Order: sequence, then structure tokens, then C-alpha cells
Amino acid sequence: MQKIIYIRTDKRNGLYDITGDVVSMIKESSVKNGIASVYVRGSTAAIMIQENWDQSVQNDVVTLLGKLVPSGIWEHDCQDNNGDAHLKAGLIGASETIPIIDHKPGLSTWQNIFLCEFDGPRERREVVVTIIADNEN
Amino acid sequence: MQKIIYIRTDKRNGLYDITGDVVSMIKESSVKNGIASVYVRGSTAAIMIQENWDQSVQNDVVTLLGKLVPSGIWEHDCQDNNGDAHLKAGLIGASETIPIIDHKPGLSTWQNIFLCEFDGPRERREVVVTIIADNEN
Amino acid sequence: MQKIIYIRTDKRNGLYDITGDVVSMIKESSVKNGIASVYVRGSTAAIMIQENWDQSVQNDVVTLLGKLVPSGIWEHDCQDNNGDAHLKAGLIGASETIPIIDHKPGLSTWQNIFLCEFDGPRERREVVVTIIADNEN
Repeated sequence: MQKIIYIRTDKRNGLYDITGDVVSMIKESSVKNGIASVYVRGSTAAIMIQENWDQSVQNDVVTLLGKLVPSGIWEHDCQDNNGDAHLKAGLIGASETIPIIDHKPGLSTWQNIFLCEFDGPRERREVVVTIIADNEN
Repeated sequence: MQKIIYIRTDKRNGLYDITGDVVSMIKESSVKNGIASVYVRGSTAAIMIQENWDQSVQNDVVTLLGKLVPSGIWEHDCQDNNGDAHLKAGLIGASETIPIIDHKPGLSTWQNIFLCEFDGPRERREVVVTIIADNEN
Repeated sequence: MQKIIYIRTDKRNGLYDITGDVVSMIKESSVKNGIASVYVRGSTAAIMIQENWDQSVQNDVVTLLGKLVPSGIWEHDCQDNNGDAHLKAGLIGASETIPIIDHKPGLSTWQNIFLCEFDGPRERREVVVTIIADNEN
């Protein structure tokens, strides 16, 4: 089973929790155990597993990446002025693969699945979720 | 086939080699070629493929992340005082997917699979390994 | 379906676009929808999804990682003098998993698949691509 989740983003840099969409999609599929591959289409965005108790870790992720990858000093800025966004995306990575355990994502209590936006706001970010059953199902 | 590997960690920051457990599990399964998805349940830990000739690279990983992500300066520290651990986990990532080649993980000579602990010591870290055969098996 | 792609690298640090090889391999397989797991065998190299409009982002990746991970200051340098290469590889990661959508990799317009070399030049880097169909195929 494969679906695209669409997300509207409202900041240049921000994290958007997509856990609920992935939970629904796994429930809808008939897969008991396996994997869910989560992939963002776009070279200025990424997927991160992170805590969502409150906004603090999400803010800290934006702060950290802003320090590690300052804006305005990259060769690519001559094209699109978004060199920092590409570099943050490459550092965090476009995909995470999450186990499916008993019809649910095998996240721990404090893990959630986030789309990381580094070059927003965007009307429509696309995250592809592909569900694969393990072969004993 | 899906299993949880349990690891006890004894340091705040440290790498723990879990390659042997993954090798055993692949052997136990009937899968000749495919993938092994390795995922840590916990938002202050990560999975890294790295050399294990001696302790040096593991120490260097801890040193590097300590420099890139200093402790004690994050918004989340008001909650748990472990903002740095969450950020290191997000940077390295919760999952790696390793090919299975002829009943063995397709690692190179110097690649091993590590659990990265960033907020230990912990009695029990959980790493979920899911094995999927390619469809010609 | 599983294959190894071989790449010759000609710089110490550089990105090498392997998208064409992955596209060909997916076409050759009979898989309509599923995933392609891309994994580099070697603990001083990595896989990154990144833009390939021109050379600028690739150069910026090399520049950024050179700043974040300076060479010559690591414990592992006493062994091989390539501590920085291992650390860059660990930071970026050995694997990415890309969806297959309608017989093609589900990349966006500006996404390409790159091998990142951090300890070249090398005669032969090995990237393992494993294609798994989703179970409705």
C-alpha cells in the first residue's frame, strides 16, 4: 500500500507532526507486522523522528540547524538563495523507515514522525508512505 | 520476521555494537536476499553504521556530537535537561536499512551496526529489527 | 531484485550522482510500486538525496561538512588519518529508502540520489540497491 500525504507549511523553518496520518494509513492497510517507509519529495525538506511533548524540541531543532548551517554564505545562494535549506535537508535525510508492530507504528511513547520544512511556507509538501508486510503475514 | 533486541547502556553518551544480534537474526530467518530495517525506539538514541576496528571512531563520534550540540543551552532543558540528547538523535536518525546478501547483512569489512546512546545509562534500550525478503525469494 | 552498482571516485570529498543506475534497475525489475533501498558498503562514504541542477549544492555539501568535521584532530587519525571521513559518513548515513511509484523512483523534480565520497579517490565504491514490491503488486 502506498499513499501520498499532503502538508501545508506556514514557516520558512518548522517541524510538522504527521504521525496521525501514518497511524491511519497503517490501520487502513491489512498489515500486522512489517515496515512503513516515509519519504519526503523535495530537496529542501526532511523526515525526522522526534519528541512532541511540547513545542520545545521542535524549536530547538530549528535553532540548532540555524547555527550549524547559517544562511547566505553558500555557492547555491546565487541560484535560489536557499543553499542552507538544501544542506539542512541533506544532513537530516529524506527518509525514515519505521517498523509496524501489531497494526501500529512501532514508535516509543515519546517518538513522533515529523516533516521538517526548511524552505517554506509551501502550499503543498508531499510525503510518500509505503507499507510493506513482512513475509510471514 | 520481526524481533526486538534489548541493550543495557552504561554511559550518558556511547556507541554499542549490535551487529552480532542482527547477524544471528538473519541466519535464523529463511531470507537469502532482502533488507533488514533497524530502528531504535526512543527519541534520545539513534542507529549508526560505523567502523569497529577499535574504540577510536566511537569516541570520536561522541566528541564530535558534543561539540556540534553542546548541552545545557536548549529550550527543552527546562523539561528534562536532555535537549542535547534529542537533537543528537534527530541528527543521526532512528533507522538504517541494511541489505541482506546471501543470508548475511551486506556490510563491508569495516562496517558495524551501532546503537547510539545519548541519554544513558538505561536499563533497557529497544531496537526493532524487521527482515523483509525480496520478492523473488 | 538486488544489484550492486560500482562507482569510481576521483576526489577525496565529492558527490557522485547514481540516479540513472537506480532508474534503470527499477525499470528492469517488474515492480510497479514499492521501495528501493540504497546502501553504501564502506564506513567512509554515505548516501544523500540532493539537488543536481548544477554543481553548486554538491560543492556546498563538501564545504559544510569540512567546517562541521575538521580533519586531523580525531583519535582515529592515529590509525588511518581519516577520522573526519568516518564522522562525515556517520552523520549523513549509509542508507536511504526511496519509494517506487509506477515503475519509477518517486523523486521530486530536483531530487537526485548521490553517493558521498569522504575518503577517495577509490577505484571501486559499492552501492547495493534492493527493490521490494509492495504486497499488492
